[in-house]
Amino acid sequence: MLDGLPAGEPLDLEEIRTQMARRAPGRDQTSTKRVESDTPRILSGTLPGPDGVPHTTGAPLAIEIVNENQRSGDYGNLTALPRPSHADYSGYIRYKGFNDIRGGGHFSGRLTAPLVFAGTVCRQILRRRGITVGGHIYRIAGVDDTPFHPVSLTPQQLEALSAVPFSLLNKKAEPFMRSAVEEARLAADSVGGLIEAAAVGLPAGIGSPMFDGVENRLASLLFAIPAVKGVEFGDGFAIAALRGSQANDSMRVSGQGFTCASNHNGGVLGGITNGMPLIVRVAVKPTASIGLPQPTVNLATGENDTLVIKGRHDPCIVPRALPVVEAALAFGLLDLLLERDGYR
Amino acid sequence: MLDGLPAGEPLDLEEIRTQMARRAPGRDQTSTKRVESDTPRILSGTLPGPDGVPHTTGAPLAIEIVNENQRSGDYGNLTALPRPSHADYSGYIRYKGFNDIRGGGHFSGRLTAPLVFAGTVCRQILRRRGITVGGHIYRIAGVDDTPFHPVSLTPQQLEALSAVPFSLLNKKAEPFMRSAVEEARLAADSVGGLIEAAAVGLPAGIGSPMFDGVENRLASLLFAIPAVKGVEFGDGFAIAALRGSQANDSMRVSGQGFTCASNHNGGVLGGITNGMPLIVRVAVKPTASIGLPQPTVNLATGENDTLVIKGRHDPCIVPRALPVVEAALAFGLLDLLLERDGYR
Amino acid sequence: MLDGLPAGEPLDLEEIRTQMARRAPGRDQTSTKRVESDTPRILSGTLPGPDGVPHTTGAPLAIEIVNENQRSGDYGNLTALPRPSHADYSGYIRYKGFNDIRGGGHFSGRLTAPLVFAGTVCRQILRRRGITVGGHIYRIAGVDDTPFHPVSLTPQQLEALSAVPFSLLNKKAEPFMRSAVEEARLAADSVGGLIEAAAVGLPAGIGSPMFDGVENRLASLLFAIPAVKGVEFGDGFAIAALRGSQANDSMRVSGQGFTCASNHNGGVLGGITNGMPLIVRVAVKPTASIGLPQPTVNLATGENDTLVIKGRHDPCIVPRALPVVEAALAFGLLDLLLERDGYR
Amino acid sequence: MLDGLPAGEPLDLEEIRTQMARRAPGRDQTSTKRVESDTPRILSGTLPGPDGVPHTTGAPLAIEIVNENQRSGDYGNLTALPRPSHADYSGYIRYKGFNDIRGGGHFSGRLTAPLVFAGTVCRQILRRRGITVGGHIYRIAGVDDTPFHPVSLTPQQLEALSAVPFSLLNKKAEPFMRSAVEEARLAADSVGGLIEAAAVGLPAGIGSPMFDGVENRLASLLFAIPAVKGVEFGDGFAIAALRGSQANDSMRVSGQGFTCASNHNGGVLGGITNGMPLIVRVAVKPTASIGLPQPTVNLATGENDTLVIKGRHDPCIVPRALPVVEAALAFGLLDLLLERDGYR
Repeated sequence: MLDGLPAGEPLDLEEIRTQMARRAPGRDQTSTKRVESDTPRILSGTLPGPDGVPHTTGAPLAIEIVNENQRSGDYGNLTALPRPSHADYSGYIRYKGFNDIRGGGHFSGRLTAPLVFAGTVCRQILRRRGITVGGHIYRIAGVDDTPFHPVSLTPQQLEALSAVPFSLLNKKAEPFMRSAVEEARLAADSVGGLIEAAAVGLPAGIGSPMFDGVENRLASLLFAIPAVKGVEFGDGFAIAALRGSQANDSMRVSGQGFTCASNHNGGVLGGITNGMPLIVRVAVKPTASIGLPQPTVNLATGENDTLVIKGRHDPCIVPRALPVVEAALAFGLLDLLLERDGYR
Repeated sequence: MLDGLPAGEPLDLEEIRTQMARRAPGRDQTSTKRVESDTPRILSGTLPGPDGVPHTTGAPLAIEIVNENQRSGDYGNLTALPRPSHADYSGYIRYKGFNDIRGGGHFSGRLTAPLVFAGTVCRQILRRRGITVGGHIYRIAGVDDTPFHPVSLTPQQLEALSAVPFSLLNKKAEPFMRSAVEEARLAADSVGGLIEAAAVGLPAGIGSPMFDGVENRLASLLFAIPAVKGVEFGDGFAIAALRGSQANDSMRVSGQGFTCASNHNGGVLGGITNGMPLIVRVAVKPTASIGLPQPTVNLATGENDTLVIKGRHDPCIVPRALPVVEAALAFGLLDLLLERDGYR
Repeated sequence: MLDGLPAGEPLDLEEIRTQMARRAPGRDQTSTKRVESDTPRILSGTLPGPDGVPHTTGAPLAIEIVNENQRSGDYGNLTALPRPSHADYSGYIRYKGFNDIRGGGHFSGRLTAPLVFAGTVCRQILRRRGITVGGHIYRIAGVDDTPFHPVSLTPQQLEALSAVPFSLLNKKAEPFMRSAVEEARLAADSVGGLIEAAAVGLPAGIGSPMFDGVENRLASLLFAIPAVKGVEFGDGFAIAALRGSQANDSMRVSGQGFTCASNHNGGVLGGITNGMPLIVRVAVKPTASIGLPQPTVNLATGENDTLVIKGRHDPCIVPRALPVVEAALAFGLLDLLLERDGYR
Repeated sequence: MLDGLPAGEPLDLEEIRTQMARRAPGRDQTSTKRVESDTPRILSGTLPGPDGVPHTTGAPLAIEIVNENQRSGDYGNLTALPRPSHADYSGYIRYKGFNDIRGGGHFSGRLTAPLVFAGTVCRQILRRRGITVGGHIYRIAGVDDTPFHPVSLTPQQLEALSAVPFSLLNKKAEPFMRSAVEEARLAADSVGGLIEAAAVGLPAGIGSPMFDGVENRLASLLFAIPAVKGVEFGDGFAIAALRGSQANDSMRVSGQGFTCASNHNGGVLGGITNGMPLIVRVAVKPTASIGLPQPTVNLATGENDTLVIKGRHDPCIVPRALPVVEAALAFGLLDLLLERDGYR
């Protein structure tokens, strides 16, 4: 359910399908073999325009994605044996044992499917306002892609990356990443990685100081994505190693306006955009569900036990998490933009 | 102004003074020479108890900290020449040129003083509920302190660290850090660093999935601190290099309850605490105000110009930012705890 | 979509059906002849307990109610001719002409069906905590029911009223009300009325001063119900005619606690419950959709025009609005209660 | 503390003083004899413009109003004997006995002074956008003023009413109202009344359906004013006596746009403004603090007791509540307007 959208915005359903397919499992060997169609059904919030294309009405946009491939058997013993590094135990305490442990539960990665739907709608609205969002796999299991150029990054680069499933600036990195993932899969293990996302075309002056800044809002959304353990903007953690004279982004006259000669701050100063590309990176932990036997406790007996997770699980979640990161970014930026512009 | 505090909580004003002194400038050579007394005056929200100690009434706790040492002359030419990597330009656009550029402005680091006041009040309330918050300087200019032990960290360690100004686990690192800072100061430059903070005694089951998780909330608060460019929990960005079998935190029976054998997730799973210590690190950029001449633009003439910042500025903000990080952590955790427990 | 419910709460689906039937159209001659089944389908948020009864999991409780009887033809000319006293024109401006004018639109009275679902879930949770919610038709077209006794009102009275469709304390008023409605119907016109609702068993100390008071919250919810134009608590507007000595509710010792000898304030003082029954009344305007021809404008031609609304419409919405008012009351009170008690 | 104001708005301090004087006590015989200067001191959020006039900077506008005339002795026995129809008992439970019972407490009518400050700032910003807010005493102790004409009400009428302390459309009602108040005062008693407020110049299309409507927001704010027990829009409770054909507001072409021939709905349909004057009335209960002895309980002994309130109290709060109602209206409308227009 997505509320607060401007009215009269056309939805490109084809692009929504493309983005949801980037997130969907079963596409290649880095992901689980489950096949989920992830077809969203729009319940409310659009009407066909004169061209037959659905347009937002301003009412809440509600969709349903049916969980078609739920094999409850795969989750059989999980109610007693919490999976290490999953939310099974923390959720069990939080919800007094009434939480839904199955694949359809509140902590399932499947909940990122509607996030991609919502984010793609936001991305389309942003694009019509001159703002382009995109991202790429920055690192998998120690194999690096080329980073974004934080100053000269273009909308075309971002659009090209977002049109494909395994988004890389340097396609030569792909076989090395894939073999690292395959190696982990054969070992019944998993690997993690980093994602870099960006937005270009953002005007200066978006966001508010202190608690309502761009970084605050985006971080708050990005940590909603399962497996994200870190969020950084601009140079992020690496900025701690620089001196002020190296880290400061000098300003220069550029055409009719002003620009920065560098972008160590990733487009945000004091919580407010400065007109430079927004650059964000997130750390994605290795998939917690692995095939290897793992020590855990038995909530029913109160004794130590060993868990063997059955079923198919992604040896690496990074490629599927990328469109989710882009979606959260688009969602957050549209929200911030609408605060500046209102609904008029 | 701090609203929503439980009623009847005594305030330890001495500890508040100690924490505010940790943040205040002019304490040693890593910080500016300005002397600000930062004495908070309580305007509302407390009444003396039978013991004469102020207790919260449940009404908003409002304080005033007078900006006593404002030398407007120091900010003379800043209205036209935005300081690189400050919010001068982004704030200028955001507020259409009406923003207050002086030291008392909305983006001033001085706004972290009330944050420390608020955080220390929250820290005291948490302590009475068995939760201890603290932190240390993790790195300055490439010089590292010993990291927290993510499993066996104790309340005593945290309390000891928070009682002193330049908090380190390994005091031998101090002279190396200080000379790196002094070196930068002599070069009219600045250095950055990392801060690590933690909470122990947090019960499992605090927080909510997706957008209202512990990491979301804390990150959202931590990015309010000027100069913070990254936030990570548990192993954070380093977790991307591990395999699932290395990163997963096995569970074990421990006394009457359960615990984890490791804590790569920093005490949070699925947005909810799991009973392990909460571990968070933030990246602090080098102070943007440096003495070296810097290229910038002139907003009045629309031409390139050169800025020389006068006045005294911290060559390293990390030690003063530490109590602010602890304050934000305490503030966020009390908020999350009260959501579980209500105001009863 | 209802989020924030405590986990482990059983749902009595039979009572939900009863309450939704009280709101559904086509039950008797005071309401439209459209037959809508209003059967809610639960999409998420529950799991069967050992007894087979669905229990809340703590995840968002999402339901779908399909709009089965939408005759788009009935709304044919409404896109150009705004119905007087409907949201057609204000919604047209708000959403720049993209709003959905059909029966399924954002302003449809049908949106109160999910509100009744949500409210009945809340009512059940409140009941298990000793709080009973209910209401009755207070007035239709000048015909009055007996008011609640503001001090000695009992849970049994409230439960009995909520179990039936045309809820009255004095059943003798029913034929007079019904003939007033029938008279309006035959004149292709409509009538309005008042609804009185109450909660008993509310402990003292719920709510917060100023903007987060019980009255603020409940009024904010009650004005969400289409056709509500006024909200009052306790004696409401009539209190303006009393002297302080008449309006003040004296306190008395009662058993182990304290009570009030009267209840002119309707159970709320300073935004906070005082332990007396909460009494609220709302004004419901006559149905705006009437059969008589009405002067309006034509948004397409920009000229004056005349509207004749076809289709079947309720000559009096009051009986169907009653369960919606009770639902909003239950919803708001549970929210306020959970703020006191948290989710633990 | 008022946050979210647009930057660059000049403050007319003289008008702020006028409005605060309308609310301040001790002006005439309807109010208490306490003399409070109510002089606000601006702590942050403004800077002088080139003309020396303070302009908003976009930072939070914080003010301090010192409670200069607090005679704690007047509140001596109140800690044990809750005043009937005050928040003493409900607040005592809410805050576990730690609430501040003195005149400076959280429930004091004095808290409406900053509300008038905030509302007058908002009123000035609205005026520059063509929206005028005002109000009048509608009734005191059964004596009525002339109601607003809901269609032809003008900005001039509203401005004239708000410039004076005892605002009436029909000045002939004043002596009758004053003598009713004086009669109550001599009887050591108090009287209540009604207030009518309005806004003209509001464009159509402000507000959102359901929970974020204009009526919801304004009611939520108006119930924050102590002593308000009812809120109604347009015809309010009286609309229940009309037929649809009488209550519906026909639309007509008017100049380049559209208007309504009547305004029974008070300018709001479906939560959204329709371009007609916004009309709201609130019920104000008789002052709860009266000189007559009153039965109450003794919280210390747990027995029945009798309270005699000393000190000076308003026999009628209505004239002083009027500028507070106008302030809340201005505050709420600016908030709603900024949602449409953003901060750009």
